[in-house]
Amino acid sequence: MAKDMTLLWGSGSPPCWRVMIALEEKNLQGYNHKLLSFDKKEHKSQEVLDINPRGQLPSFKHGDNIVNDSYAACFYLESQFKSQGNALIPDSPAEQALMYQRMFEGLVFYEKLNAVIYYKWFVPEEERHDSALTRNKEALATELKLWEGYLKKLGSGSYLAGKSFSLADVTVFPTVAYLFRFGLSAERYPVLGEYYALLKDRPSIKASWPPHWLENTKGQDTLKEI
Amino acid sequence: MAKDMTLLWGSGSPPCWRVMIALEEKNLQGYNHKLLSFDKKEHKSQEVLDINPRGQLPSFKHGDNIVNDSYAACFYLESQFKSQGNALIPDSPAEQALMYQRMFEGLVFYEKLNAVIYYKWFVPEEERHDSALTRNKEALATELKLWEGYLKKLGSGSYLAGKSFSLADVTVFPTVAYLFRFGLSAERYPVLGEYYALLKDRPSIKASWPPHWLENTKGQDTLKEI
Repeated sequence: MAKDMTLLWGSGSPPCWRVMIALEEKNLQGYNHKLLSFDKKEHKSQEVLDINPRGQLPSFKHGDNIVNDSYAACFYLESQFKSQGNALIPDSPAEQALMYQRMFEGLVFYEKLNAVIYYKWFVPEEERHDSALTRNKEALATELKLWEGYLKKLGSGSYLAGKSFSLADVTVFPTVAYLFRFGLSAERYPVLGEYYALLKDRPSIKASWPPHWLENTKGQDTLKEI
Repeated sequence: MAKDMTLLWGSGSPPCWRVMIALEEKNLQGYNHKLLSFDKKEHKSQEVLDINPRGQLPSFKHGDNIVNDSYAACFYLESQFKSQGNALIPDSPAEQALMYQRMFEGLVFYEKLNAVIYYKWFVPEEERHDSALTRNKEALATELKLWEGYLKKLGSGSYLAGKSFSLADVTVFPTVAYLFRFGLSAERYPVLGEYYALLKDRPSIKASWPPHWLENTKGQDTLKEI
């Protein structure tokens, strides 16, 4: 069934990972995929540009339908394969409200993470300011406290929108995994640590774990003091 | 029906406007709402913080369900009131794919607009660089060309995902309206100009038009040269 799908992706990119988790959850294994290298700038290759004029990964195609944005692809897959694999949108209005809300706050979370760990990558050298990086770190710490609180309120063993795994987890888990890969302290953020531990061995997540993280299991300590 | 809904909003904020358009499209007139002033920092008031820990507008509540993010609120309203008012998610997989894709590219579009018109607001004086603002303007121009191309490809009179008005238009139209309010040239971007003209008198959009734009019909010319 998934033979009419193609995913061009990069290892460890949270947006790519979101789509891969969604594909696993919807039992869409067997899709065509190609791992490209950001370092070699393969995301700017003609093969990518043919699908994605922005030259970004993921680039995703299902038949003639192109859905490159990771959130768009997750929504699309859930909508097209509603009754296949795991349902990723809860039925109850309250859980749905929470799911949508957390999914979109997840974009802010991801942005605040990037503004710290990729500050040098995003900002040319002559435009960098210690004051900006300090502010970004403070904003990330504030954000982390929000998410600690959200999960704490739901109680131990909860997913982001409540009792069931949903699109909120599909889209936000890769950000959480990145945080710990970059040295976030599970002692300082125990509830996020518990959430990470709850999800990291889930089959869809394990099956799509970034290959270069498997090769090199040691992460960085950039976020140790956050 | 909409008496159990409350929207706290600010005039001319594209995220607030998205939710207001969705409410109109779903025939949910009659909701409680309160116009707050960003200038007076009313978005940081306790009334907002009680609903929205981020202290941002929109802040939206339906019964006990809180959905503050504008995209989340649009999805939630469409899901909860699927058969009421206008259907905002097309049935055909191809149009659905395009709708999701354009919605999420719409967030990039909005961000690139803000990075130009609110550069001084976002960046403290001592961290500003002409080189950064120039780069942001170039990025906005590139983005505008993408959207001109998207609409051109669909043909005259099209909405963003094809023949029917959808969540893509609900979420992206306010960005387009902002562009023209800030002086974008419809001669330079004729297809976007045509799209703007097609939508600006749609009942849901007219009913939710920013009140301070009605009071002061003259915009700014910030984007004249883009």
